[in-house]
Amino acid sequence: MAAELTPHELIARHRPTLDQALEAIRTRAYWSPHPEHPKAYGENGSLDAGAGKAAFDAVLGTRIDLGQPGTDDWVGGEVSPYGVELGVTYPHADIDVLLPAMKAGQRAWRDAGAETRAMVCLEILKRISDRTHEFAHAVMHTSGQAFMMAFQAGGPHAQDRGLEAVAYAYVEQVRTPDTAEWTKPQGKRDPLVLTKQFTPVPRGIALLIGCNTFPTWNGYPGLFASLATGNAVLVKPHPRAVLPLALTVQVAREVLAEAGFDPNLVALAAERPGEGIAKTLATRPEIRIIDYTGSTSFGDWLEANARQAQVYTEKAGVNTVIVDSTADYKGMLSNLAFSLSLYSGQMCTTPQNLLIPRDGIATDQGHKSFDEVTADLARSVDALLGDDARANALLGAIVNPDVKARLEAAAALGEVALASREVANPDFPDAVVRTPVIVKLDGAKPDAEAAYMSECFGPVSFAVAVDSAADAVELLRRTVREKGAMTVGAYTTDEEVEQAVQEVCLEEAAQLSLNLTGGVYVNQTAAFSDFHGSGGNPAANAALCDGAFVANRFRVVEVRREA
Amino acid sequence: MAAELTPHELIARHRPTLDQALEAIRTRAYWSPHPEHPKAYGENGSLDAGAGKAAFDAVLGTRIDLGQPGTDDWVGGEVSPYGVELGVTYPHADIDVLLPAMKAGQRAWRDAGAETRAMVCLEILKRISDRTHEFAHAVMHTSGQAFMMAFQAGGPHAQDRGLEAVAYAYVEQVRTPDTAEWTKPQGKRDPLVLTKQFTPVPRGIALLIGCNTFPTWNGYPGLFASLATGNAVLVKPHPRAVLPLALTVQVAREVLAEAGFDPNLVALAAERPGEGIAKTLATRPEIRIIDYTGSTSFGDWLEANARQAQVYTEKAGVNTVIVDSTADYKGMLSNLAFSLSLYSGQMCTTPQNLLIPRDGIATDQGHKSFDEVTADLARSVDALLGDDARANALLGAIVNPDVKARLEAAAALGEVALASREVANPDFPDAVVRTPVIVKLDGAKPDAEAAYMSECFGPVSFAVAVDSAADAVELLRRTVREKGAMTVGAYTTDEEVEQAVQEVCLEEAAQLSLNLTGGVYVNQTAAFSDFHGSGGNPAANAALCDGAFVANRFRVVEVRREA
Repeated sequence: MAAELTPHELIARHRPTLDQALEAIRTRAYWSPHPEHPKAYGENGSLDAGAGKAAFDAVLGTRIDLGQPGTDDWVGGEVSPYGVELGVTYPHADIDVLLPAMKAGQRAWRDAGAETRAMVCLEILKRISDRTHEFAHAVMHTSGQAFMMAFQAGGPHAQDRGLEAVAYAYVEQVRTPDTAEWTKPQGKRDPLVLTKQFTPVPRGIALLIGCNTFPTWNGYPGLFASLATGNAVLVKPHPRAVLPLALTVQVAREVLAEAGFDPNLVALAAERPGEGIAKTLATRPEIRIIDYTGSTSFGDWLEANARQAQVYTEKAGVNTVIVDSTADYKGMLSNLAFSLSLYSGQMCTTPQNLLIPRDGIATDQGHKSFDEVTADLARSVDALLGDDARANALLGAIVNPDVKARLEAAAALGEVALASREVANPDFPDAVVRTPVIVKLDGAKPDAEAAYMSECFGPVSFAVAVDSAADAVELLRRTVREKGAMTVGAYTTDEEVEQAVQEVCLEEAAQLSLNLTGGVYVNQTAAFSDFHGSGGNPAANAALCDGAFVANRFRVVEVRREA
Repeated sequence: MAAELTPHELIARHRPTLDQALEAIRTRAYWSPHPEHPKAYGENGSLDAGAGKAAFDAVLGTRIDLGQPGTDDWVGGEVSPYGVELGVTYPHADIDVLLPAMKAGQRAWRDAGAETRAMVCLEILKRISDRTHEFAHAVMHTSGQAFMMAFQAGGPHAQDRGLEAVAYAYVEQVRTPDTAEWTKPQGKRDPLVLTKQFTPVPRGIALLIGCNTFPTWNGYPGLFASLATGNAVLVKPHPRAVLPLALTVQVAREVLAEAGFDPNLVALAAERPGEGIAKTLATRPEIRIIDYTGSTSFGDWLEANARQAQVYTEKAGVNTVIVDSTADYKGMLSNLAFSLSLYSGQMCTTPQNLLIPRDGIATDQGHKSFDEVTADLARSVDALLGDDARANALLGAIVNPDVKARLEAAAALGEVALASREVANPDFPDAVVRTPVIVKLDGAKPDAEAAYMSECFGPVSFAVAVDSAADAVELLRRTVREKGAMTVGAYTTDEEVEQAVQEVCLEEAAQLSLNLTGGVYVNQTAAFSDFHGSGGNPAANAALCDGAFVANRFRVVEVRREA
C-alpha cells in the first residue's frame, strides 16, 4: 500500500512545531500550539462547538469498531457521572491474538526512524486537536469534569503533554548519531578505523493503564513517549473512562495506516465489568513498558510484579500547603478556594492538608487567628461557589460513589469549618455535585494524624493546627517522605520559613509553588515548563516530562565494522 | 575552611576537557584525554613507570586510613592472583555511623551545581590519571590482568568511562535551565507571569558494588555518574579487589576536601572475609542508587529486593560469534584467537559460542570444513600464545579457583579442539596461567545445549556445529533472548546473512561487531563511542553510557512564584 502521508509531507506539516516544542522544553518559557479557547476551533478543518457536540452525540449508543485483530466480544457500560448512559461498546481483545499482531508492524516502525515517528505522532495529535470539542464531551462524560475543564485539561493541555513527550523522546533518540566514523591513531602504524551504525530500538509493547479522572491528560505522555520511541502501545482504559482513549486509539490507527504503517501499533484493550485485565496484561512477557496513573496499592503492585517491564507510576500522595504568613490575605484565600474547589478536589494535585499555626498568622490585614483563617477560607469557598451555575462550572460531578462516601465521612473526623453542600445541576439532574468540606484537626493529636496522613481523594481538606512554622515544615517533610506529594504550596513572607520550606522540597523532591495569589494554582502545571510530580517521592516514580521519562523506553543498538 | 580549589580554578583546568567529552559523545568519533602508552606518563606531575611501581610497593603491607567516621575495625586479606599477599588493610565501617555522615555534606554538594560537580569529578579523574602506573599494579594484583592490560583497561580506559559518565550526567542536568520566566497571555487581561527555579537534586546515597575482574573499568561509570548528579557514593569493593577502589576513594576524598566539600561524600565499605555486607547495604533505606557488576544470581537478587533504589546491573550473558563465511580467513582466525585469549577469556565480553555450519564455510582460501575451521583456530591460538612471555602478557592470571575448576571441567563436555595448557610465569611462580580451551559441540544434540546455553566464565569456548547460517541466526536469537549477551560477533560475506544477524541484534538489543579481522576486537569497547551492553537483554539492565544511565540518578525540583 502506498502511503497517503509521506514522511516528506509530514515533515512539511509538523517539523516546525516539533522544533518549537524542543525550544520550549529547553527554555521552559510559555508555549503551546493548542488553543485553550473553545471559540478558537472551527476553522482549518477543526470542529467548532456545535460540530464537536454533534460528533459526540453521534457516537453515543454505537459500536466503535477499531478493526483490531482478535476481537472476540464487544464490551461497554460507561455511565457518565452526569447520569447519562453512553451506550458505546468497544472491541474486547483475545490477547493471544492481539499482542502478536501488534508486534508485526514494529520493524517498519523502528526502521522509520525517530523523526518520522515524531511526525506521525504530531499528526495524530493534530487530528485529536481538531476534534477537541468532541473529546471535551467524551472527557466530561467519563471523568465528571465540568465542560470547560474537560475542554482545556482534556484537550489542549493533554495534547501539550503528549507533544512534550514526543519532543523529549525525539531529542533523546537523536543524541546518538545514526552513524559515526571512528579513527584511532596507532602511532606510526595505520590507524584503526571503524564504521558504526546506531539504531534506537523499541523495548517491545507498551501498556498504558488509563485513569478515570484524566484519561487523556494522564494518558498521553506515556502513550506518545512509547510510540515515539518505536514501541507498539496497548491502551487499557479505566472501565469508566474508555471513550476518550478509544477515540484516541481510533485516530492513531487511522494516521498510522495513512502513513503506511501497521495500525495495530496502537490498540485498545477494553474489558468486561469486573474482568480486571490490567494484572494479566501487566505481567505478559510481551509488555515491556507500563504507564499507570491510579491508586498507590495497584501502582505498588505493578512495581513489584511487572518485573519484565519498565514501570512508570503516578500514585497517590498527600499534598500540603503551609500557611505561615502573607502579604495578600485576600489573594491567598481566593487562590486557595479555587484550588480546593476545582473539579471537586478530584485532582492528584489538589491540596489536602493546610498547615496553619495554632497561634495564627501575620497578614497584610493584621494578625489572623487559626479560626479566623479557616473561617475566612470557608467564606472564600462559599463566595466562589455561591452561584450554582458557577459552582457547576467549577466543580463538575463527583466521579464515583467512593469519593462521595469519603466526603460524607469526612465531617466526622473533626470540627467542620466548611460543610459540603449539594449543588443542583439543571442540565444533568442525576449528577452528584458537591462543594468541598474543610475539617479542622489538631496536628498535635495522634488521633487526628490518621486522618491527615492518609490521602482522602476528593473534595476534602484538613485545616491542621500546628505549633509553629517550624512544626509545619517538619510535618511537611514527614508527609512527603512517608506519603509522597504531587504538589506543595506555601504562603510566607518570612525569608527563613521560605528557605526552610524550599529546603524540605529539595531534600524530599517535591514541586513547590510559593505565594500564589493570582490566576495560577498549585494544582495546575503547564507542559513544556512545569514538571508534574518529581519522581523522587512516594507519590510517583516518574515526572512529566523529563529525560528519565523517555530514555529507557528504547535502547540503542550499535553495529560496527571495519571501514 | 577556605577551599584550596575554587570553582574558578577547577573550571580553568577542566572545562575544556568536559567540552571535548560532550562533543565526543555527540559525534562518537575517537577521543580520549588519557594516554594509553605507559611512556606517556612521568611529566606534569604524573608518575612514570618506576615511580608508579614504587608507590604501589610502598602501599603494600600498610593500612589505608581514609579518615572515615564510624571506622570500627581494619580489614583486608587480598592475595594477588599472581601469588603476592598485598597485606593492605582498610577501614571497616559501622554503617549506622558512616551513612549519616555521608549525608551531612550532600546539601552543599547539591547546591554547588552541575558544573562544579563535574569539575570536581574531572579533578579526581586527573589525579587518578597521574597515578595510572600505580593503579595499574593495583588492578593487576587484584584482577589478575597482565600488566599492560591492567594499565590500559584499568587506567586510561576506565578513566575514559568515568569521564564519559560525568559528561552524560552534566548534560542531562543542564537540559533544564536554572531559572525560567513564564509569561502566559490572557487576552486583554494582564498575562500570568511566573518565575521558576529548577534544581537538580540527588536521590540520596549511591552504592557501588565492585567486581573482581575490572574494579575500576566497571566501577567508574556508576561512581562518577552518581557523584556528578549530586549523590554521595559508598564504594563496596569485591573482597578480592579492594585496593584499586580504595585508592580511588582516597583520591576522591582528598579532592573533595580541597574543593571545600565534605570528603565523606565518597566512602569505602570494606568487609571481613565472608561478611557479605552487600545485601545489608543494598536494602538500607538511605541507599537510593546501586551499581553492580557480577553474577546474574546476585544481580537478579538486587533487582528484586533493593526496591528502594534505582538498580543498574551488569550480569552474565552468553556471547556468540557466528562464523558463516569470510573474505579474510587468516585475519578472522587471528582476530578471534586474540579475543579468546585476552585475559584468559575472563571478560564479560569474551565470545563463548562460535557457531559454525557443520558443512563448513566459504573463505578466501576456499571452502573450510567445520573441523578445519576449529583446527585452524586452535592453531592460531597456539601461535599467538606459543611464546611464554607473550602468553603471559596476554593471558594474565586466572582470577580465582572457580575459573580454574570450570576450565578443567570443560574438556569433558565434548571433543577438545584445543587443550588448555599451563604457562609458567617466571616473575610470579605462584600465578595460575592457562591458555584457553576450545570444545566442539553439536548444536543439534540436546545434551550439548546445557553446556553452550550457560555462561562458562573464563577461557572456555565452544565451537558449536549448526545446520546452516539460518540455524545459527536462530540460535543466536534464542541465546540473546534467554541468556543475554554483552557482545555478538559475526563473520559473513553473505548480504542476506548479515542482514539476518543485524535484525536479530536489533530485535534482541545486542551490540554487534561485524567481520573484525584487524586490531579491534569484539570484546573491547571504547568510551565516548561504543556502548558497553545494551540494557535491553538479560545480560545487563543498563548500557555504558547513555542518557538512561544518568537521567534517573537525580530529580529536578521546581520552585515557582509569581513574578
